[in-house]
Order: sequence, then C-alpha cells, then structure tokens
Amino acid sequence: MVQVTTLPRNETGIRTVIDVLKQQFGERLQTGRAVREQHGHTTTWIENQAPDAVVFPTSTQEVSDLVKVCATHDVPVIPYGTGTSLEGHVNAPAGGISIDLSQMNRVIEVNPGDLDCRVQPGVTREDLNTHLRDQGLFFPIDPGANASLGGMASTRASGTNAVRYGTMKDNVLSLEAVMADGRIIRTGTRARKSSAGYDLTRLLVGSEGTLGVITEITLRLQGIPEAMSAARCSFPSVDEACQAVTSVIQYGVPVARIELLDTTMVKAINGYSKLNLPETPLLLLEFHGTENSVTEQAEIFGALAGEVGGHGFEATTSTEERNRLWKARHDAYWAMLQYRPGAKGVATDACVPISRLAECVTAAQLKADELGLIAPIVGHAGDGNFHVTPLVDMDNPQEVENADIFASWLSELAISVGGTCTGEHGIGQGKQAYLEKELGEATVIMSAIKAALDPANIMNPGKIFPARP
Amino acid sequence: MVQVTTLPRNETGIRTVIDVLKQQFGERLQTGRAVREQHGHTTTWIENQAPDAVVFPTSTQEVSDLVKVCATHDVPVIPYGTGTSLEGHVNAPAGGISIDLSQMNRVIEVNPGDLDCRVQPGVTREDLNTHLRDQGLFFPIDPGANASLGGMASTRASGTNAVRYGTMKDNVLSLEAVMADGRIIRTGTRARKSSAGYDLTRLLVGSEGTLGVITEITLRLQGIPEAMSAARCSFPSVDEACQAVTSVIQYGVPVARIELLDTTMVKAINGYSKLNLPETPLLLLEFHGTENSVTEQAEIFGALAGEVGGHGFEATTSTEERNRLWKARHDAYWAMLQYRPGAKGVATDACVPISRLAECVTAAQLKADELGLIAPIVGHAGDGNFHVTPLVDMDNPQEVENADIFASWLSELAISVGGTCTGEHGIGQGKQAYLEKELGEATVIMSAIKAALDPANIMNPGKIFPARP
Repeated sequence: MVQVTTLPRNETGIRTVIDVLKQQFGERLQTGRAVREQHGHTTTWIENQAPDAVVFPTSTQEVSDLVKVCATHDVPVIPYGTGTSLEGHVNAPAGGISIDLSQMNRVIEVNPGDLDCRVQPGVTREDLNTHLRDQGLFFPIDPGANASLGGMASTRASGTNAVRYGTMKDNVLSLEAVMADGRIIRTGTRARKSSAGYDLTRLLVGSEGTLGVITEITLRLQGIPEAMSAARCSFPSVDEACQAVTSVIQYGVPVARIELLDTTMVKAINGYSKLNLPETPLLLLEFHGTENSVTEQAEIFGALAGEVGGHGFEATTSTEERNRLWKARHDAYWAMLQYRPGAKGVATDACVPISRLAECVTAAQLKADELGLIAPIVGHAGDGNFHVTPLVDMDNPQEVENADIFASWLSELAISVGGTCTGEHGIGQGKQAYLEKELGEATVIMSAIKAALDPANIMNPGKIFPARP
Repeated sequence: MVQVTTLPRNETGIRTVIDVLKQQFGERLQTGRAVREQHGHTTTWIENQAPDAVVFPTSTQEVSDLVKVCATHDVPVIPYGTGTSLEGHVNAPAGGISIDLSQMNRVIEVNPGDLDCRVQPGVTREDLNTHLRDQGLFFPIDPGANASLGGMASTRASGTNAVRYGTMKDNVLSLEAVMADGRIIRTGTRARKSSAGYDLTRLLVGSEGTLGVITEITLRLQGIPEAMSAARCSFPSVDEACQAVTSVIQYGVPVARIELLDTTMVKAINGYSKLNLPETPLLLLEFHGTENSVTEQAEIFGALAGEVGGHGFEATTSTEERNRLWKARHDAYWAMLQYRPGAKGVATDACVPISRLAECVTAAQLKADELGLIAPIVGHAGDGNFHVTPLVDMDNPQEVENADIFASWLSELAISVGGTCTGEHGIGQGKQAYLEKELGEATVIMSAIKAALDPANIMNPGKIFPARP
C-alpha cells in the first residue's frame, strides 16, 4: 500500500459522538474492525484508513441529526456510497464517522413527461436503470463500477457515455444536501434550466463530501433510443486510433460511446471475457438514434476510420452482441487485475484536449515501457480522457517507485498540454499534489469557500486540499 | 420607471478612486452624465441608477489594477458588457465604477481540432460567429440580443438553441476572472471534462458580477451542421402547441430550436417584420443534422403535431426563408414595443417542468386578460421557459400596479409547480423577492459564499441578494 498522510485525531470528541449516536442509531451504528476497514479505501494502492464507526441512516433528517452531533463535538464526517472511488475519498485520515448511505436507496419519483427523477443517494446506477426500463427511460452516466448516484455526484463522475450525454455536472438538475452545521438545503428546482442565484448544484457536484452530504438527487433522464448499434474497429497503432476519434468528433457524428483500448488491454479482456478480438489497438463504439440515423452514423465512422488505417470494422444492432462487447469493456478493471494476478492497479485519469490525445497516449506508452511497467490503457477517447493503469507488484519497491514516477509524470504531462490530472475520478487523497499545479490561485478561492461553509473542517477532511498534519 | 432600492454611498472613497483611476486611464475614464446613464439599466421598466464613472480597460491586468484601487477604498465595481440584461444587473445602487469591457473584444484563439476557443469578455455572440464561420464552426448560445459573451456567462444566458445545445453553464469550459481583491484566477483547463476540485467555472457563470469580473472565457464550439431546416406549425390554442412540444421532447427528437409564440406575439411580428403568418399560436422550429436526419426529424415532428391539432405545417431548407423566420423571432422584443408604441416591457422569465408548460401558459394568458394587460408571449418551449411581457403605459398607475401584480403572480406560479422565477435572465434587482421563496435555506449558503469571497461587498452590490439600504 502507498501511505497517505494521517491527521490529528480528536479522541475525546470521537468517543463522545459514538456514545451519543449509539443512543439514536442502535445496531445501525457499527464499530467492528471488518466493517470499518471495508468503509475505508479498498480499490487501489492507496492505504486503508478506517473510520471509527459506520452509521447507516435511513432519512435526510437522520443525516442532519448525526452531522449536528459531529459538528457539536468537532468530529469528521465521511459520506460513503459503494466504496468504488479510486482516490481514497472514503478514507478517514483523522478518524471519524462514516455515513453509509446504502439504506437510503429509494427511487422517490419518476416523471416520464419531464424526463427526470428524484432518487436517494444510495441508489446505484444499475438499480436506477432497472427501475426505469419499463418506462422506456434510462440514465446515461456510466462510470464502469455500479456506483451509487450520491457518490457519482460527489466525484463528478462520467464514463463511457459522456461524449454524448455529458457528465454528472450536466445530468444533475438539483440536489438536497446536509451542510456542515446540519442545515438541509435544496439547490434547485425541476426546471430544466435556471439563472436563479449561484449554482450550488454544480458547486456540490464534485465537492467529494467536503462541503456537505448529498441526501437526494434530481436527475435528468433520456428516452431509450429507438435504435442502438455497436461497432468495433482495429488500428495499427494508438496514434491512428486517436486520429479516427479526433476526426469523428470534429465531423460532428453524435457517437454515444467511443472507447480506446491499447493492445495490452485487448489481451487482458480477451483473457478475462473469453473473446477473440484482434490483439491490436481497438476502438469500441456505440451509436444511438433512429434506425436510419444509427446506420448513417456507423457508415460515416467506418469511412473516417478507413482513411486513417482502421481495419476489421464491424457494426451490429444485435442486442446480445452489443451487450457482450460492453460487458467486456466494463470488466476492464477486473480483466487487468487478472492479467497480472496479485498486482495492485494505480489509477491515472489524464484528460487532454482531443487534438493532443494521440501524442499523449503514445508518449504514455513509451514512458511506461521505459520504466518497465505493465500498464494497460483504456480511454473515453471522445472526451480526451484516458486511463493508464500500471499493475504493480507491491513487494517490489523499485516497481512501486517507478509507478509513482509514472503517475506524476502523466498528471504533469496532461497539465502541460492544457488538460487536467483528473477527468472523472476526482482529487481525493491521491491527486492533491497536482491541483495547485493545474489551477494555481483558483485553489485559494476553493479553500476560502471550504473555510466559509465548513469552518471546523469536519466534512471529509484531508480530501481535495493538501492535508495539514 | 419602477424604483429600486438605493444603497448608502461612500462619497469620499468614490472621489478618491476616480482621482486615482484618472491618472492611469486618462480619457478611458468617463464621468459625463450621458455615458454614465447609458451604463445604468436602460432596457426594461426598472429605473436607471447610473455609476459615478465608466472605465474602459483593455487588459486583464488593467481590470485587476482597477479592482485593487476600488478594494482599497471600498468602492463598488459593476462589470458592463452591452447593457442588454433585463433585471437591472448594470445599475449602480450605491454608485461606483462601471467597468465597460467593450474594448476587450479580441478572439484570442480558435482551436478547430478541439472545438473550442478563447475570447475576451467584450466579444459579442454575433462577432464570434462571424469570426468562426470560415472555419465551419459556430457558437450556439443565442439569447436574442447581440450580448457580450462575458455578460452571457455572468447571467447564465441561454435562448433559442438551449433545448439542444444547453446554456452558458454547459458551454463555458473555463474562465479567467479578477476577484474582489484583484487576484486573477483561471478556473479550469481546455479539457472537455474535469473532476479537479470545486467547479469555480459554474460558480462564476450566473454570479452576475457579484463574485468577480470575468476577463476571459474558454468556450465549447460546434461544427456547423451539414444540413439545417426550419419549420413552422400553427395551433388552435397555446395548450395544443405546448402538447406538441411535450411530445416532441418526450419522443427524443433532437430539435435545435422549438419556440412558442402566442397570437398577440404573432400579430406583433407580422406587423414589425412584414410577414403573413396565420394569427394563431405558432411553433417555430429548427432541425440540425445530416440531410437525411433533418428530413426525418421534420417528418416526425409533423406527425406528432398533427396528432394534437397542428395545421399549416411547413418545413424548408432554404437558407433565405430560414433566416427570415428567425430574424423575425429575434426581433420579437422590438416588435412588441412597436405593437404598443411608448409602452415599457416588463420582463418575466418563468421556467417550469415541461409537463406543466401548457397549463402555466394558459393560466398566464387568463391572468393577463383578467388584469387588462396586453402581454405577448414567446417561449423557449422545449425548456419549459416562457416570457410573458406586459406592455405597460407607465403614465397609468393602475396599469403599472397590475403589471407588478402579474409579474409576482407568474414568478410564484412557476415556483409552485416546481420551476424557477428565472430560466435565463438572472435575479439582478428585479427578481430578488423570489429567490428565497424558490430556494429557501440555500440562499444562506449563497450569502456565506458571497461574504467569504467579497467581504466588503464591492462586487456589483445590491444584485442577487436583497439590498440592505
């Protein structure tokens, strides 16, 4: 594990808060070691920092009550969805109370006429889509993991569909949240647009639990398209694959998904998902629209890809074939871990202007090779976002060091070409070193907002901003 | 004119600041009455509150310098674009310095490969589109007026294309701004998405100059579609027209524009633009896509409209015909003023869930009739946003009172059905009475952010938040 900073603990406050909350929550407050560790970070090479207790509230009022208790005694509050975030967001570097929102998992209402719905934060994206299917609706944001919608809002998640449907920032209409003093606010209405005051919705989306606990989300929905088709196309190199991406975006084809996999990733997926994809760089695509429109989109893409060396282009409207390809894509993380058993994945999340994508992905491949790292690449190429994931033997200090060198190098490369160190994962603990490099003086303004809304720093302390031990 | 609150003036500070700035800006600081009044509010029935001086900076550094001088002497700073905002945003209720950004009107760079550009805040949307045309690109946000992009960002503007392309919040990638202490910040990068820290871009978009002065904007662009077609369709009543809108949105047709005009508005436009549109409620539409796709979209719309009583459906791909229709739509405000010469327009901006649009527009017509008001309606119906504009004889106190009753009633109606009092104009001075009704405790959080980032309240004081005289 890679160590993260530990912050001073308020032992007296923590003990008091646990005693007080035990009265209200009974068995819904847990202090066993296993449950606490499961509520710390578990997904990547960042070490686990378990909270002191885990509480399972069932209503906004209960969340407000427990935040008030924590505020009174100056004890950290760490919201928890499904624990699938990648940058240590659910760790408790100063201890404190993990708020597990999994019991707040109700779809409150669906308004098909307005293409929106209200959900509690513990509803997962797959649960929501199952709930919506009969009404001909779907929620497009798809970060791979079956994450909770509260967690997805908190990290400003996106994923494979973002090139067409945007990210969580574009699909959250309004939020209800409990702020640091226990106050319950509602940030907007069900209107599709608004100019009423500061955009607190977008301020909370991506705030990683450092400003408030999201307790309800109003989401925009989409009608399930009349037709969907999937396609795949192989390329001699990632450079040519990226060129195809750039031309399809510039041409204005409204692709719903356009995903890049490098040769190593294709090999990993072939092994894990029992596929026979050609082991060269690959683009996976999906088109949404009317029957005519998806056919036309696929044809245009095929022609553009052919111009830059694409081969083996295949499109299908078979639901079964489509699901098989996308299931394999979604299992990429597990496929990688199986590709090098026992290794830990190092999450990277560079996002660059798409005109710079080809050179950045190629440079990343060379750099990983140079450092002797096995590092499959998968990317939401239409957004310029790509994940290089060094698979690291944590017992080999040289390899750990090289992975660290690589991750820093990649974040700085992204920043140097006008991009960001994190397209969709968030800063958490793992990317703090780059936030100021990326945004400079703007981080002073972020800190001022944090200090104004959470003066005692009890809301998920040690995340986003460099920890002060 | 309708009076707005006057705030206490810091006379000594204002005199000192003008003396100091005169040294730096020379003739680019103006104190003549005509230029000062022209920089107060002039568009609607809100009274004019002129600033004490108008400064014309030419660079971000100059804006920073002058904000620092104002901060030192506790003097208000009011950013000014083209003065086309509708809610008194550019008024100076406590006096102070208007920053006219019209000389910062350079398109800094266009990146066709990334579909983005960087512009200074004084560039207007028409200037930008003229600049982009040769490169096959356009910027879709279109609030009617030829507003400056800085002003459009500040009020979170949208307009006719928002149903497809979103609002300013969706199309600003990043901002440069001068904050209340003169600090220059950059809120993001050129990456198409990011999860790096708080979304200061979206916090500044729509903040109406109360947090900072926008000095540069990075915008997303669109490729000019291969084909565009326009269509119009008449309906027996606004209710049926709204039903057609609701079904086209629910069906998922990616309409680029879908605008509602009531009978009075059609009459006004016929008069002003020398057209012969049937004088019944009308929808104007535009479709963007490939040749096949725009034909298909128009066909689907025609069928859906026919089911709810639409008649006289006509679609055209003739550029001349299309421009003539949309020019008429854009001139709606002037057409209204000519429809009742000498009257002032009262801006309303209700935006409701589209399932409630038909009933709200119908109720608004009845209410205006009941109050004896001439009040044409035009709406960005695909977003549920509609403008009822009472045309008021300001010499008739009863009529002025009735218009005021109507505007309040409409804002409250919108809020009561889960919508907002302002879909795209902003709060400014005119909508302050409704912000707390709409968002409750969330306004306390907004005030806390304002106090943290502008403790002396020098950034456009008296806007968004109720003035404390």
